[in-house]
Amino acid sequence: MFPRQIQNFIDIFSKLPSIGPRMATRLAFYLAELDKNTLNKFISALSGIIDLGVCTHCFGITESKKTLCEICESKTRDKKTIAIVEKQTDVFTIEKAGGYNGIYLILGELKHDGTLEPEQRKKLELLKKRIEVEQNGYVTEIIIALGPNTFSDFVASVIKQAFKGMAERITRIGRGIPTGGQIEFADEETLRSSFERRS
Amino acid sequence: MFPRQIQNFIDIFSKLPSIGPRMATRLAFYLAELDKNTLNKFISALSGIIDLGVCTHCFGITESKKTLCEICESKTRDKKTIAIVEKQTDVFTIEKAGGYNGIYLILGELKHDGTLEPEQRKKLELLKKRIEVEQNGYVTEIIIALGPNTFSDFVASVIKQAFKGMAERITRIGRGIPTGGQIEFADEETLRSSFERRS
Repeated sequence: MFPRQIQNFIDIFSKLPSIGPRMATRLAFYLAELDKNTLNKFISALSGIIDLGVCTHCFGITESKKTLCEICESKTRDKKTIAIVEKQTDVFTIEKAGGYNGIYLILGELKHDGTLEPEQRKKLELLKKRIEVEQNGYVTEIIIALGPNTFSDFVASVIKQAFKGMAERITRIGRGIPTGGQIEFADEETLRSSFERRS
Repeated sequence: MFPRQIQNFIDIFSKLPSIGPRMATRLAFYLAELDKNTLNKFISALSGIIDLGVCTHCFGITESKKTLCEICESKTRDKKTIAIVEKQTDVFTIEKAGGYNGIYLILGELKHDGTLEPEQRKKLELLKKRIEVEQNGYVTEIIIALGPNTFSDFVASVIKQAFKGMAERITRIGRGIPTGGQIEFADEETLRSSFERRS
């Protein structure tokens, strides 16, 4: 019914989170009416995403196929302080809040039953190995920066167990963040104080 | 703060209707985590849109730079019955409902003060010229298929005036569609009956 290109756009883009078939249809017709120049900007913005890579240390996003992200690469960041977070956006929110100079491990979104995916276990294993090789098996602090809720409580205890004896302190960020709340939606003040009052 | 490509994506895509900066950010990170193959499908679906053209008769979308759309090009459609609609999506909804075999003029979204944009006036002028040249200045019916509301009432009277003496009948679709309702959200039954009961 729709022109082939429109239908194809709808089929593909309606798979994106929060974009259903109706919204994809709207977008398709909106885009179809743009001049070629503007449309090319959309195409090149989307194409730019393909050049991004994954940091081999923190599993964050890296620019233009570098092996390490800016933070892991930086000589001024404290490699002996590691914050374990769920998502890439958590890193950006914490960086924007300021006050933290350590590095990160992005674990990926937690399952709601508190168990870790094989890939998440592997990430923790790789971090352990890196601490052994690069930091003589001992760091200053591992901060479990997971939004406080029941399933992250369980994951936190797994992490504490796994890194036992490998860090001077293993802490969780302070409960300044409301229970059930997500880190990326926290205001900067709450986030900073939850870092300060970590225990 | 964000990698350059991510920021660029957010800047561009947050301009789309219903996509604000927060949703664009979510999309960017979602896309960044897809494998290259899947991402390429998104890129090519978006690039496909650029090949679409505009029909020089009805101002609808045409595939691959043709001058006429499928409907205007078709030999089986009744060129002496013309439905004037607001949007491309209206055409698709009417076609999907079935029962209409005429052609269309897509006027573009109406301003809420009932006045016509210069481009909309030009479209009506071109239709008049086409009726004069191709149909000897007289067609069977012009159906004003605009969603019933106060500003379209005014536009309808302008259209009736403009095409006076050029059609056997100038009708408006039946008020089966609730006042204030939009054509593209109408169910097929209501839409068909509003075509049948046109007056």
